Amino acid sequence: MNTQIDFSLPSAVDIQQAASRIKPYVHQTPLLQSRQLNEMFGLNMLFKCENFQKAGAFKSRGAVNAVFSLKESELRKGICTHSSGNHAQALARAAALRNCRAYIVMPETSPKVKIDAVRQYGGEISFCAPNLSARESTLKKIQENTGAIEIHPYNNLEIITAQATAALEVFSEGLQPDFILAPVGGGGLLSGTAIAAYYFSKNTKVIAAEPAGADDAFRSFYQRKFFPSHEPKTIADGLLTSLGTYTFPIILKYVDDILRVQEDSIIESMKLIWERMKIVIEPSSAVVLAAIMENPGIFQGKTLAMILSGGNIDLNKIPWL
Amino acid sequence: MNTQIDFSLPSAVDIQQAASRIKPYVHQTPLLQSRQLNEMFGLNMLFKCENFQKAGAFKSRGAVNAVFSLKESELRKGICTHSSGNHAQALARAAALRNCRAYIVMPETSPKVKIDAVRQYGGEISFCAPNLSARESTLKKIQENTGAIEIHPYNNLEIITAQATAALEVFSEGLQPDFILAPVGGGGLLSGTAIAAYYFSKNTKVIAAEPAGADDAFRSFYQRKFFPSHEPKTIADGLLTSLGTYTFPIILKYVDDILRVQEDSIIESMKLIWERMKIVIEPSSAVVLAAIMENPGIFQGKTLAMILSGGNIDLNKIPWL
Repeated sequence: MNTQIDFSLPSAVDIQQAASRIKPYVHQTPLLQSRQLNEMFGLNMLFKCENFQKAGAFKSRGAVNAVFSLKESELRKGICTHSSGNHAQALARAAALRNCRAYIVMPETSPKVKIDAVRQYGGEISFCAPNLSARESTLKKIQENTGAIEIHPYNNLEIITAQATAALEVFSEGLQPDFILAPVGGGGLLSGTAIAAYYFSKNTKVIAAEPAGADDAFRSFYQRKFFPSHEPKTIADGLLTSLGTYTFPIILKYVDDILRVQEDSIIESMKLIWERMKIVIEPSSAVVLAAIMENPGIFQGKTLAMILSGGNIDLNKIPWL
Repeated sequence: MNTQIDFSLPSAVDIQQAASRIKPYVHQTPLLQSRQLNEMFGLNMLFKCENFQKAGAFKSRGAVNAVFSLKESELRKGICTHSSGNHAQALARAAALRNCRAYIVMPETSPKVKIDAVRQYGGEISFCAPNLSARESTLKKIQENTGAIEIHPYNNLEIITAQATAALEVFSEGLQPDFILAPVGGGGLLSGTAIAAYYFSKNTKVIAAEPAGADDAFRSFYQRKFFPSHEPKTIADGLLTSLGTYTFPIILKYVDDILRVQEDSIIESMKLIWERMKIVIEPSSAVVLAAIMENPGIFQGKTLAMILSGGNIDLNKIPWL
């Protein structure tokens, strides 16, 4: 996989245009603070609450942007993707907003709560075996049969551009935090966040947080060589995927560091945020606080913007119980 | 107990002055909506999120008002109360804000999470047996030894006046909902809400929600005769107390109805709010949605303001697990 940016990087104007395009259909999410957590960690944290986003995650930004960037004629045959997670819901919702069909390939092992959510938005689900090749071959068959346009969950420039709007909203409040932190899975949110900082808050360092049990981005970043995600083991079910041909080179160029975190810290951070901030976040969101918990020295006394990526969790499976 | 208001009812100006007094020390909490929940129930709900309030509950309003209404000289010997719940934390915090001592009597069976919270705010705890007479006698001894001023959790006009400010904030947004709903335990929040509606939104009906397993307010309201809370059985641990000499007559005069709800509905409502709104509320907050769930006909198509009273819950004990 190429380590250089050999494609047209989304520009500042592209990000601003995406923000305008999606504005009627997504929330400008709140930026919350907790005096208690700030005192506990000795720093100043601003939590960008994408758990309050439509369909419960930042994925709605990208999905709406990708769907609304297509022409009416292009939508006639529908759109499709494979996803077991938040992208599936977000895309089904975005398609419904434009009255177009959404074909979603989901592993047959997907939790009922996620299947229900996709159906609720009108998504048409095809189940497949729970592995990448089954997902890809099932999707290919659907594309051949329907002519639907694939919208990849993160390796898509419309998606990356729109995920940058979460950070844009932070910087648009006049804030120039010392750091901005985002979780990394496939890298859509992270690469968007990184280019937003590059354009709109030059002095803000961009830090990614990744579960140690799924540290393919960390290894790819430090060895400047793509490693796919291989048998990832983490509770952060939104962070299992591999980097892509767009996200990897952007991350290499615009991200300052990737910090790995242990499962215990993810669970402890998640519980702490529920308990002190009274908000429900999913494990993938908690990795950013876990990174601070494990690396207190780096952030001492600083101002940090932290993207809480989503709040979709099966409430029958609370990880600390 | 007298059913007539034979005391000076807090006025509209009193409520506005309390709002100004507490403003620097409490949050103006957000009013959230959920399209999904509105569609599910066929009405328009506005959730006043006191779970995001300082110390995690509306109780901070009353506690701050009561403490800040005292003169410096009156605070010299400290303040005291008995409470196993949110009032204890809120009062300890309010006392700390004025650098005064707070003596809190708590049952020795109180959950560790609540004891820790009171200590964190600097409250000095005396433990007692878990019954009302032990609580009262322990408090009396502390008062005799210290000269501290008692601040009752709800049967106190400064407290009632300040609890009215949550509803005042709703009405101040220019909203005139058809109904406003609040949970009822001792009646501080409910009586405050009722007089706020009376002064600031005359056409808004005031509805209380109460667990069927702790329905002393319901019986007192309908028989116009005070019944104390007797062996209450409910998961809503903020709603175990009896009405007081101030709250009972106010409720009789200014509340339109009290609806009783089953435990199953409380738990289901609580889970629904966590799941769809991504916010953490305690069981006592969930009774208002439970009342709607059990009485869909009354509210069909209407606009409802609903006070979510708090978010303090032991996350190791999730009621549906």
